[in-house]
Amino acid sequence: MIKPPNPQRRSQKSHDAVLAAALELCAEEGYGRVTIEGIAARAGVSKKTIYRWWPSKGAVVLEALHEAADIAAPHPDTGNLAIDMRTQLAAVISFLSPPSHAPLAGLIADALSDPELAGLLRERLIRPRIAEFEQRMRRAQEQGQLHPDANLDIALDLFYGPLYHRLVFHLGLPEPEYLDTLIEHVIRALTSGEPSRSA
Amino acid sequence: MIKPPNPQRRSQKSHDAVLAAALELCAEEGYGRVTIEGIAARAGVSKKTIYRWWPSKGAVVLEALHEAADIAAPHPDTGNLAIDMRTQLAAVISFLSPPSHAPLAGLIADALSDPELAGLLRERLIRPRIAEFEQRMRRAQEQGQLHPDANLDIALDLFYGPLYHRLVFHLGLPEPEYLDTLIEHVIRALTSGEPSRSA
Repeated sequence: MIKPPNPQRRSQKSHDAVLAAALELCAEEGYGRVTIEGIAARAGVSKKTIYRWWPSKGAVVLEALHEAADIAAPHPDTGNLAIDMRTQLAAVISFLSPPSHAPLAGLIADALSDPELAGLLRERLIRPRIAEFEQRMRRAQEQGQLHPDANLDIALDLFYGPLYHRLVFHLGLPEPEYLDTLIEHVIRALTSGEPSRSA
Repeated sequence: MIKPPNPQRRSQKSHDAVLAAALELCAEEGYGRVTIEGIAARAGVSKKTIYRWWPSKGAVVLEALHEAADIAAPHPDTGNLAIDMRTQLAAVISFLSPPSHAPLAGLIADALSDPELAGLLRERLIRPRIAEFEQRMRRAQEQGQLHPDANLDIALDLFYGPLYHRLVFHLGLPEPEYLDTLIEHVIRALTSGEPSRSA
């Protein structure tokens, strides 16, 4: 006897196919050239199916990146903060390389003029990563690798800021040696002396 | 006797009118909604005139910003590095506020998918500012406010990175008190101890 098709399972399969197609097309054509039509064709679904689940191309790519980032850019914990940050930042850099094709760079550009996408980018993609970063920093504080009063908002801005400064002004993403120097400086800024106070 | 019109002078007047119109329209409508047509109408010139001088809307806005930045965001030298960086960073933040209307944010977005504009942004707007920043840092080194071996590439990334990290992920640009805390951390990272080395 042939089983009836399981609509939920088919739906999940289409959903996954759309996300995979979106990332493939970004890699091949660059985010800017990808269209909902192209994603639909590659995934073998209708445009209507895509629009039922996502409001825009940006929202599709965002969800695809969200799933990919969990696998590709976790926060390791070897007990050595500098080494772990190097691993994690290198993973983020590879997500942004090359900027002309990186889906995250395309999303950043679109979100600068699309408040709805900006909200999704912040809340769905970035806030969960900030929470993971803060967890890792707290473990570093417990292990004495980071000053117990270190300001974690500042830590986030100093560790990740250089990547985006270099991205938006096309100054070249950090090479491994420069990345090590950056991390060393940031840890020094966070580690020494008194809890920071405003001037 | 009526003097014949001076074509060079008229041309300069049109040029200035275009740049002023571009910034006015960005402030009123947001960068994304500004068009070459709109700029031409406001400036009282033809579209053809604009295209004779600039390849794109982005290029017009870029030149307008370039002139405005020299006046609005210089690097002061009071002899106090922290105070001077606060003044300069606050001026950059006001250039980026609010991100939805800031011409610089619109330029950043466009340049992420337009290699020609990306090159203009880096070479015409950013590199001259980096040179000014480095001059200020060298004076701070001469005055003993910054370690003589401080890495000025790292200094640039740590001072300015947080602004762009917060811009691209819509995390809110730094408030004055947070900005002071940031500057204090960056100066600490750059000031202490040994010249930095990669691990």
